[in-house]
Amino acid sequence: MQTTQRPMTAVIMAGGKGERFWPKSRVQCPKQFLSLTGDGETMLQKTFRRIRGIVPPERIYIVTNGEYMTLVQEQLPEIPEQNLLREPAARNTAPCIALAATVIEKRLGESVMLVLPADHLVRHESLCADVLCRAAAAAEETDALLTIGITPTYPETGYGYIAFSRTQDAPAGVYQVDSFREKPDLETARQYVASGSYLWNSGMFAWKTSTYLNAVRKYLPAVGEITEKLGAACDTPEFSNVLTEQFPLMPSISVDFGILEKAKRIYTIPGTFGWDDVGSWPALLRVARTDTNGNYRDGDVLTVGTTNCVFSGGKKLIAAVGLHEIIVVDTDDALLVCDMEAAQNVRKITEMLREQGRGELL
Amino acid sequence: MQTTQRPMTAVIMAGGKGERFWPKSRVQCPKQFLSLTGDGETMLQKTFRRIRGIVPPERIYIVTNGEYMTLVQEQLPEIPEQNLLREPAARNTAPCIALAATVIEKRLGESVMLVLPADHLVRHESLCADVLCRAAAAAEETDALLTIGITPTYPETGYGYIAFSRTQDAPAGVYQVDSFREKPDLETARQYVASGSYLWNSGMFAWKTSTYLNAVRKYLPAVGEITEKLGAACDTPEFSNVLTEQFPLMPSISVDFGILEKAKRIYTIPGTFGWDDVGSWPALLRVARTDTNGNYRDGDVLTVGTTNCVFSGGKKLIAAVGLHEIIVVDTDDALLVCDMEAAQNVRKITEMLREQGRGELL
Repeated sequence: MQTTQRPMTAVIMAGGKGERFWPKSRVQCPKQFLSLTGDGETMLQKTFRRIRGIVPPERIYIVTNGEYMTLVQEQLPEIPEQNLLREPAARNTAPCIALAATVIEKRLGESVMLVLPADHLVRHESLCADVLCRAAAAAEETDALLTIGITPTYPETGYGYIAFSRTQDAPAGVYQVDSFREKPDLETARQYVASGSYLWNSGMFAWKTSTYLNAVRKYLPAVGEITEKLGAACDTPEFSNVLTEQFPLMPSISVDFGILEKAKRIYTIPGTFGWDDVGSWPALLRVARTDTNGNYRDGDVLTVGTTNCVFSGGKKLIAAVGLHEIIVVDTDDALLVCDMEAAQNVRKITEMLREQGRGELL
Repeated sequence: MQTTQRPMTAVIMAGGKGERFWPKSRVQCPKQFLSLTGDGETMLQKTFRRIRGIVPPERIYIVTNGEYMTLVQEQLPEIPEQNLLREPAARNTAPCIALAATVIEKRLGESVMLVLPADHLVRHESLCADVLCRAAAAAEETDALLTIGITPTYPETGYGYIAFSRTQDAPAGVYQVDSFREKPDLETARQYVASGSYLWNSGMFAWKTSTYLNAVRKYLPAVGEITEKLGAACDTPEFSNVLTEQFPLMPSISVDFGILEKAKRIYTIPGTFGWDDVGSWPALLRVARTDTNGNYRDGDVLTVGTTNCVFSGGKKLIAAVGLHEIIVVDTDDALLVCDMEAAQNVRKITEMLREQGRGELL
């Protein structure tokens, strides 16, 4: 595997509060802390294991909401406590990565960072590791912002896409990003896939700390200013207070929108390693093992004439009769039954619960 | 209301073990002991209340399985203990009614009996009571076996039908039964309803004890012989032992098949009082109150884009998203999710549980 001259680090972003796996995911325990594939390993643990072969635990950083620090420590006891970076408020990915970049640069000097969401799945772990190593090396060599693109295998409408092209400037296997495209409709997605010049935007990145921090100063000065204060306080007794005070003052903005769509030189490395963002319950039919009728089963499930369903339960028997493309998720205090096509409307239930002041179910 | 010269009695048959309301109904607590309409009153209690206005509690008899004696006593404390007749084994309706007929005749002399299943629903209680009184009077007057027919309102394929015609012999409003028809297919059911000469077979009957016991002796001599032994032992110290020994020796046979389809003079009185046998979960959409989207809701239920579903739960939240014609029944140890059209296949689940030796879930 290719390595970098500078220290190679990884930042796992684990602060998300996604509600798309409600009622299994809760505000107290969102998706990245759940085992959704029936093997007992949580999404966060899988992400850690994926990266551990190429980055040692002492250089793996986790950025997460203050509420989840205990969950991270429980699930990843191998990570040094000082590598757990606390977000005092949710400010999306650009500030989250800026915090990690400045802490890493302060501690290790200029480094190469891999940035990874904590809640995606990868089927071919070693192919993924190889692509990440090549991305890290290219990021160091070119001083560019690198995003990992995924060669699309079908016209998914739930992902963002990257338009890419060859460039003379980049090393072999590294391409230039021409533009980012929001989630397309099905027809557009079909055209993207057919054209061969689009990749899925995976949300995995590689860059040098200096490259990212320079981009922040240039494109998000409000974030850059506070990031400098955080860097100055890092590893001093004041750090926690400065973080609590300053971090929430940053604007809430994603790295895609705030930096990547504005910066001049963005490169991409296309990967093909069975990546999936597992965005909602129906995704389990793509990424997890199913029975001969195409049903995903987690728990004690009996089926009669039932196909392409998702069952996620506990100890209680779930009996399914004549169901097709239905999601059934049973927990101690809430049961969800949902048509596959309406999965995006699960958030209407969580909105109703919020309106009704039933926060204990969120 | 018409009354009878002889004592008027009622027999409620409450020994059924139907599994079509699994997992709410269990071997330990079948349908007749459940409240399915969301008003807290069980089917048995409703049947008792329906008849109480025309027959005093001391002349209402309940025949049930030995296992359910306690349930009956709890739900109907008004019924004298000696009117609870125990079936030591399930032998279908002909022996069940014979037991009641011989006990009643022994105690009250020749009487008129109304025979009622414990697990049907009636919307218009007073209209039903009126028809039952007329049936009792006609049974006494004509010495015939009378069955209550229901004027069909739609081509139900889950009911048996009665072909009927006018007869000079019978009192006004009483018709002759020409034949009984098994559950028809939809096309046949449509023809039955369109013809105007068919009624639904309600399973409610009226006759004199002597008429029934004579018919048993004639058409079911094996039942008749044992019935005589039971009558002889009735209200003696030996009764319980004789019942335990003799009753299981009777053949298992329905009154429809064993007597009504063979006997010569069967009359029917057509009734129109919102009767329903509530044969399975989908029937609740016909008989119980539904929301503006046609959903039956028993429990804490939130819906989004959901129509014509049945929800039966407990304290746990049931959240339904994008569902149409789906049945969701949640209990402490088993959850059923079933397509409305496949409701008859719920028994495949109970068969699987039986095969797997999981009797605690039945």
